[in-house]
Amino acid sequence: MTNDFHTLKPMPVFNAGSETRLERDLLGEREVPTDVYFGIQTLRALENFQITGITLNHFPNLVKALAMVKKAAANANGQLGYLEPKLQSAIAGACDEIIDGKLLDQFLVDMIQGGAGTSTNMNANEVIANRALELLGHKKGEYKKVHPNNHVNLSQSTNDVYPTSINLAILLSYSDLVQSMESLCVEFDKKASEFNSVIKMGRTQLQDAVPMTLGQEFAAFAATMREDVARVKELVTLFKEINMGGTAIGTGINTDPEYRQLVVNALSKISSIDFVCAENLVEATSDMGAFVMFSGVMKRIAVKISKICSDLRLLSSGPRAGFNEINLPPMQPGSSIMPGKVNPVIPEVVNQVAYQVIGNDLTITLAAESGQLQLNVMEPVIAFNLLQSMRLMTQAMNTLAQRCVNGITANEEHCLQMVENSIGLITAVNPFIGYENATRIAKQALITGASVKQLILEEGLLNEEELNDILAPENMTQPRKVAIKNLV
Amino acid sequence: MTNDFHTLKPMPVFNAGSETRLERDLLGEREVPTDVYFGIQTLRALENFQITGITLNHFPNLVKALAMVKKAAANANGQLGYLEPKLQSAIAGACDEIIDGKLLDQFLVDMIQGGAGTSTNMNANEVIANRALELLGHKKGEYKKVHPNNHVNLSQSTNDVYPTSINLAILLSYSDLVQSMESLCVEFDKKASEFNSVIKMGRTQLQDAVPMTLGQEFAAFAATMREDVARVKELVTLFKEINMGGTAIGTGINTDPEYRQLVVNALSKISSIDFVCAENLVEATSDMGAFVMFSGVMKRIAVKISKICSDLRLLSSGPRAGFNEINLPPMQPGSSIMPGKVNPVIPEVVNQVAYQVIGNDLTITLAAESGQLQLNVMEPVIAFNLLQSMRLMTQAMNTLAQRCVNGITANEEHCLQMVENSIGLITAVNPFIGYENATRIAKQALITGASVKQLILEEGLLNEEELNDILAPENMTQPRKVAIKNLV
Amino acid sequence: MTNDFHTLKPMPVFNAGSETRLERDLLGEREVPTDVYFGIQTLRALENFQITGITLNHFPNLVKALAMVKKAAANANGQLGYLEPKLQSAIAGACDEIIDGKLLDQFLVDMIQGGAGTSTNMNANEVIANRALELLGHKKGEYKKVHPNNHVNLSQSTNDVYPTSINLAILLSYSDLVQSMESLCVEFDKKASEFNSVIKMGRTQLQDAVPMTLGQEFAAFAATMREDVARVKELVTLFKEINMGGTAIGTGINTDPEYRQLVVNALSKISSIDFVCAENLVEATSDMGAFVMFSGVMKRIAVKISKICSDLRLLSSGPRAGFNEINLPPMQPGSSIMPGKVNPVIPEVVNQVAYQVIGNDLTITLAAESGQLQLNVMEPVIAFNLLQSMRLMTQAMNTLAQRCVNGITANEEHCLQMVENSIGLITAVNPFIGYENATRIAKQALITGASVKQLILEEGLLNEEELNDILAPENMTQPRKVAIKNLV
Amino acid sequence: MTNDFHTLKPMPVFNAGSETRLERDLLGEREVPTDVYFGIQTLRALENFQITGITLNHFPNLVKALAMVKKAAANANGQLGYLEPKLQSAIAGACDEIIDGKLLDQFLVDMIQGGAGTSTNMNANEVIANRALELLGHKKGEYKKVHPNNHVNLSQSTNDVYPTSINLAILLSYSDLVQSMESLCVEFDKKASEFNSVIKMGRTQLQDAVPMTLGQEFAAFAATMREDVARVKELVTLFKEINMGGTAIGTGINTDPEYRQLVVNALSKISSIDFVCAENLVEATSDMGAFVMFSGVMKRIAVKISKICSDLRLLSSGPRAGFNEINLPPMQPGSSIMPGKVNPVIPEVVNQVAYQVIGNDLTITLAAESGQLQLNVMEPVIAFNLLQSMRLMTQAMNTLAQRCVNGITANEEHCLQMVENSIGLITAVNPFIGYENATRIAKQALITGASVKQLILEEGLLNEEELNDILAPENMTQPRKVAIKNLV
Repeated sequence: MTNDFHTLKPMPVFNAGSETRLERDLLGEREVPTDVYFGIQTLRALENFQITGITLNHFPNLVKALAMVKKAAANANGQLGYLEPKLQSAIAGACDEIIDGKLLDQFLVDMIQGGAGTSTNMNANEVIANRALELLGHKKGEYKKVHPNNHVNLSQSTNDVYPTSINLAILLSYSDLVQSMESLCVEFDKKASEFNSVIKMGRTQLQDAVPMTLGQEFAAFAATMREDVARVKELVTLFKEINMGGTAIGTGINTDPEYRQLVVNALSKISSIDFVCAENLVEATSDMGAFVMFSGVMKRIAVKISKICSDLRLLSSGPRAGFNEINLPPMQPGSSIMPGKVNPVIPEVVNQVAYQVIGNDLTITLAAESGQLQLNVMEPVIAFNLLQSMRLMTQAMNTLAQRCVNGITANEEHCLQMVENSIGLITAVNPFIGYENATRIAKQALITGASVKQLILEEGLLNEEELNDILAPENMTQPRKVAIKNLV
Repeated sequence: MTNDFHTLKPMPVFNAGSETRLERDLLGEREVPTDVYFGIQTLRALENFQITGITLNHFPNLVKALAMVKKAAANANGQLGYLEPKLQSAIAGACDEIIDGKLLDQFLVDMIQGGAGTSTNMNANEVIANRALELLGHKKGEYKKVHPNNHVNLSQSTNDVYPTSINLAILLSYSDLVQSMESLCVEFDKKASEFNSVIKMGRTQLQDAVPMTLGQEFAAFAATMREDVARVKELVTLFKEINMGGTAIGTGINTDPEYRQLVVNALSKISSIDFVCAENLVEATSDMGAFVMFSGVMKRIAVKISKICSDLRLLSSGPRAGFNEINLPPMQPGSSIMPGKVNPVIPEVVNQVAYQVIGNDLTITLAAESGQLQLNVMEPVIAFNLLQSMRLMTQAMNTLAQRCVNGITANEEHCLQMVENSIGLITAVNPFIGYENATRIAKQALITGASVKQLILEEGLLNEEELNDILAPENMTQPRKVAIKNLV
Repeated sequence: MTNDFHTLKPMPVFNAGSETRLERDLLGEREVPTDVYFGIQTLRALENFQITGITLNHFPNLVKALAMVKKAAANANGQLGYLEPKLQSAIAGACDEIIDGKLLDQFLVDMIQGGAGTSTNMNANEVIANRALELLGHKKGEYKKVHPNNHVNLSQSTNDVYPTSINLAILLSYSDLVQSMESLCVEFDKKASEFNSVIKMGRTQLQDAVPMTLGQEFAAFAATMREDVARVKELVTLFKEINMGGTAIGTGINTDPEYRQLVVNALSKISSIDFVCAENLVEATSDMGAFVMFSGVMKRIAVKISKICSDLRLLSSGPRAGFNEINLPPMQPGSSIMPGKVNPVIPEVVNQVAYQVIGNDLTITLAAESGQLQLNVMEPVIAFNLLQSMRLMTQAMNTLAQRCVNGITANEEHCLQMVENSIGLITAVNPFIGYENATRIAKQALITGASVKQLILEEGLLNEEELNDILAPENMTQPRKVAIKNLV
Repeated sequence: MTNDFHTLKPMPVFNAGSETRLERDLLGEREVPTDVYFGIQTLRALENFQITGITLNHFPNLVKALAMVKKAAANANGQLGYLEPKLQSAIAGACDEIIDGKLLDQFLVDMIQGGAGTSTNMNANEVIANRALELLGHKKGEYKKVHPNNHVNLSQSTNDVYPTSINLAILLSYSDLVQSMESLCVEFDKKASEFNSVIKMGRTQLQDAVPMTLGQEFAAFAATMREDVARVKELVTLFKEINMGGTAIGTGINTDPEYRQLVVNALSKISSIDFVCAENLVEATSDMGAFVMFSGVMKRIAVKISKICSDLRLLSSGPRAGFNEINLPPMQPGSSIMPGKVNPVIPEVVNQVAYQVIGNDLTITLAAESGQLQLNVMEPVIAFNLLQSMRLMTQAMNTLAQRCVNGITANEEHCLQMVENSIGLITAVNPFIGYENATRIAKQALITGASVKQLILEEGLLNEEELNDILAPENMTQPRKVAIKNLV
């Protein structure tokens, strides 16, 4: 399982009697518990946004990304002389701790928040400022020394920091996703080899069609997911274009002309990801296109994996009154009332994850569409849904690979029997006897229950040798050269 | 099939050399072909909105509704003395012709249009004015005598006429919809009776569960659709609240205080539908709630009918390598390459209609959500999608009832065989031997291929008489009083 | 804020060295920590479903509902003599503790799970069995005395217990939702009175239309939400139809004929909600219609509240370069880079909640549509999304009422100024001077910048007295009787 | 406007008394009118699928694509000796006529159809066979000479012909789409230059933020659409992978081993598009991934263009009580009741198209997700929605470019005035006076109505020269090097 996954952690209790420090902002003064690293603006956000109960720190990669971005900005500001070395170093030091997973419990704002991510940015600014203050030997709250806005947020705006951090969080989560997809492909491939010689009826429109091998079926599962790995790899590069340096609306107000490139370089170095400046920062500040596109790919993966899981459930239906071609490994007793029942619980949970991801894609679409003018204020719900979709899909893929596909077995004999019994064999004979003869034979077989082979022999349309050749499995499951009788 | 259905008609050709009359509006002058009934504003709309190619007259009920509303307004204006009797009578006469299906070819604006329906309203105003002119012995275009705005649109605004007309169009289309649903229920009921004694395996999670009758399965189809008939009937009343008299923004500017009630009364009389004034006309003018709600019900019906059609396709899967419990009537050869194949084409088309209706519901939702201030300017796309959904669903239901359900037959023997062969019988025995014994027996049956009955007898857990009683179809498909053995 | 809301709680740690007891099921044996109340089947579910990290106990009303259902079943079984009084009493006692909020930390299965809720049902069965064992003086795990399946689950199946519990959880959460909606209506009403005499421009299509009062605008907000309260109240009754007694597939296998009514009665008594038996239990077991419908209403509420919040943001846009008609109370500093900026963060978060609810509705729709045959195996993702939507909406409504609407103030003078300056006044004059004169005047006003009033006077179309009467606010914001000049 | 666009054409009337010929298929015999080119299977489809009234020929590119595919197959069959030269030539000749736009009125099956496109394929097979018969001097219906299945459909299945034709239809429609997008970019670019020196307030969260130029705003519109042109160009290549040669389920049954490559080559030559064989034909036959992906891009474009149109409507709101920064060219009178009102009808219709495209994307998603086993039977509704979305979007882009953007003018003076009057200027001063001073000044300005500049001068925080430099438009709308005062 991926490292990023963990169950939800609780919000720290603010003890009634705990000591406090006084902080102030545009709206006035508030007491903040002495021992917390966040400040007055985070406090207001905690009060304002009691929505999902799912807080920033449930997405550690997002918190890590915020710290990387803040460190990059501090470094760029330092290089340009806007930040004293001592200050830069303290800020960077605080960021490093967060990158290492510390202080995660201080990132507590609800994932769905108003303000276009300002509260998330301020949560980071405040925690970093207070930790930097400690590193410099000061007390938390002495913002004259290290100020959340003047220093930690220097040359930045929520409107470049927040989307950049989301991009980075996606890039940090991406390898887990790809790995889960690839491991699933590997399992499908293994089964494709294993079932290489299991001949079975292919079905179109749920009706018996023509024969194929079970290996071909699983190879198609592998192929279709592997295509998506390629798509994900292509599209994730969209997130390497960032809008740092655009500040409030992309015009770069309050930044040095050299800052933009320096901060991108710094972030590339810190994250080991080769970021580039977006070409048009005004556009980049309000555009949600990359999120919509990537969510679209997540939706495509969801659609495919859901189709595959539905197929697995169909193929394993039964055991006696269904298709019964394959057996899924039993993972838990299936029923509280029906003893001995084993259900396809793993594909079922993956189907549901797919529906969640498709629903999330709609939420992302709605949020993206409602952007106005120089900013899309709905970014928080986009970030929440996209990061959640990536996590759900990663977990689902791993679960499917390890708890289902790798234990699938085939009912080879039953599969073969259905082929031999099938009217679908007529299609293979079609080029030799013509569509109208074939139609007639098929109809007769259906009515009388007789086998196609027997009827053709009876009518003398082909002899036994010809038929055996035509109906040999290896001849029905791939193209073949045939001497066609003149049908006209 | 419903009367409202017809294939799309083409836009009349404006012959290059045809005679014209000169009309003018806010933007200037334009030549309009002499023989058309619409005027300059419709002409501009035809040029501005070349979007879907699907024009107003593809929804005759909408055109009819517009004419009824216009007639109602003329009557109310006449009663209040704002419109001379001669004028009122000419306008009403023109409306009556349209209500009777005439002049349909003059309603040509694209269903998806900007302007919140103004072009639709003006299309109606112009056609009615010109036809009224003719009825009064004038020429088309002599608007001093009968003016599209000053007379036909008197005391009205697009913002009350258009939503009211959509409401009315829905109410006019509604009976076809309900009739199609009810006729489908009737077909399901017939099959429920016919298959009353066909015993078969019930399935949960695609795994063999416990026995039921095929009649119970079809009765459930009928029951679930019948509930929706009730929901549709409940909710359609929402459309009887109309905002006539609200004019531009619901404040009723430019209307007489008595007009509101009079126009509602007039429309009720004309349409034989008991309309009422919306309580808050400001709210009613911008609110799309009823459309969202009704589309939500259409979506619910779509979800249900799609599930039913998927079931029909599953149950008829085969004929040899599937469930093969029922046979759908063959409607067309199933394949261009596979002779004799017959596919469940009718349920398939209904599934697709369901997906279209669900997609349409999203379009409606998006349009409703994006309303601003005193008006929802996206009404045209709402009207288009909702009327289309109603039509599609009506056609689909009728098609399903007449071309599929009424011809379904059961494979009774095969159904019975699967029950007798099933491990699912163990559930019926569970109360008598306990969950753990039952689990063990079921497991053994699965591994050895032995029958459940045989294993129980071998172990002496129950005797043959007891087993026969427990496993009698009538005892397994409904509750029964039993003397339970003490299991503890 | 509602009592049901709480931030997410963590999964208890299974200490490596903790003592264990041995349990067994269909698949074999497993060690379960001695101190936990759940058993082997829950343990398997915890391993199988590591998906969202959001566990059953994050929805306390669902856990409470499960316990109520289990108690009702125990009572009915007791009445019928299928459960000894001592056992019934112990089971009921364990249920009562859970109803009182105890043992919540034992309900740990992921909300998104395979198996159609079997793991949820077994989590309840196991916790109740083990607690009942303790109440009877036995040790946890001594299932011979109180068995999760044979006793706690007696006469039940996941397939009736789970949907019934979801219904009940919705009914338990419903009053919080309605209360939040009603409190929001109250706040809107207060503002409607307060702004009763604030005259302002109404806008259609974002263009200046005709005057109205700000009070009318807020009254419309109240009216539209109040309609939804009515819709919610109507539709929640759908959940009072339950399928208890249907067991596995609705046929009632393994139940006494009298059980069905007894368990419904018992549940009604325990919950103080008047439940009724679904008419067709086969239908009720697989049908998701009520969830789709209720989610559709949640979507409708989302659409409306989102439109309202977008309006609030528009009306408060500025302060200098926007509409600036109203001021939202400042809740937090608006920007990390723009000092003094205050943003409409509360409406923004509500918009995002609306998008989430609409996305959730799609997930529910997809899950409902994919039901197959006698059961919808996707119920868990439906329950998760519907309960989440109700909670999010409740929180959002409360937040909007208390942190935004109740503090809104009007910029009365600015509103009035815009009316007087507006070309939209021409509409009020239209009935007196005719559409074509009015159009010409409006055009001239736009080009020259002159006021409409001045131009009319200059042209002598009306005199000052007439104009003052026509343009009096009280005459423009409601219908009025006028002596219309003959315009033809 | 694009050539592909045309309004809907009616279904030809079958005259009651028209002469007929007798045809037969699997289900029996039917009379077909003598003068029509389609045959019995198309006739059945016309009866079975009376759904939308929107027939194949409303998408001429799809009909053209079918003919190209059929010709390619005939050529490949001819090369391999499976089709006599005379027959090949006649079939190819019939195809060429259709490619040239003839016989379009013979393609009449409803776009939404059951059977996974079999009726579409048979409509093509029958029309081509009958026209080929005529070319060979035979009568329509003499299928012994040229048979729809045995000859026209030789080596093919609906399951490779139909998806390949959809791919080709998309590729044929694609250049119109791209051209419309590019022409829109050009118009945005022109306005970007034209408005290069128009200084205005940028807005975030609808609140005054910091200054920018109107040119920057329009340049961002161009940039964001241009990105999508790139995405469309990338992704359309997905459709160049086709599954011809896979026949029924991708195994290539009934094809010659060399056929696959030959038919792909032939189609490449006929269409001038470089097609390639899909790597895994089993996968390719059931996979809808490319449609989902491309529809996802259509959705992304819809989201972006909808955001842009909403911005255009906001920026042009007014004229007196709104933002009033730009004027859209008036396209039609805006209201039936409000004289002189001009509405943003073109952006409004584009918003609605966007909602339709997003709804269509959901329909496509649902259809793709419900594929089963070796085929996705829901392809028709996918093709319908995707081709419709492409057409709608093409029309909308062209309409927006030509009927709106190219005529937009700026209210330069009003824009400037709002900047000078704005509190947002404080942000530019922030680096020089610190976040807390700046916050205080901003608050004071808001309360007193004083200008930011004046307050700063009064407090002596900066002198006039410094302020003039900081607030120069060119300094506020891009990054600049500044000597920062020591703020700590």
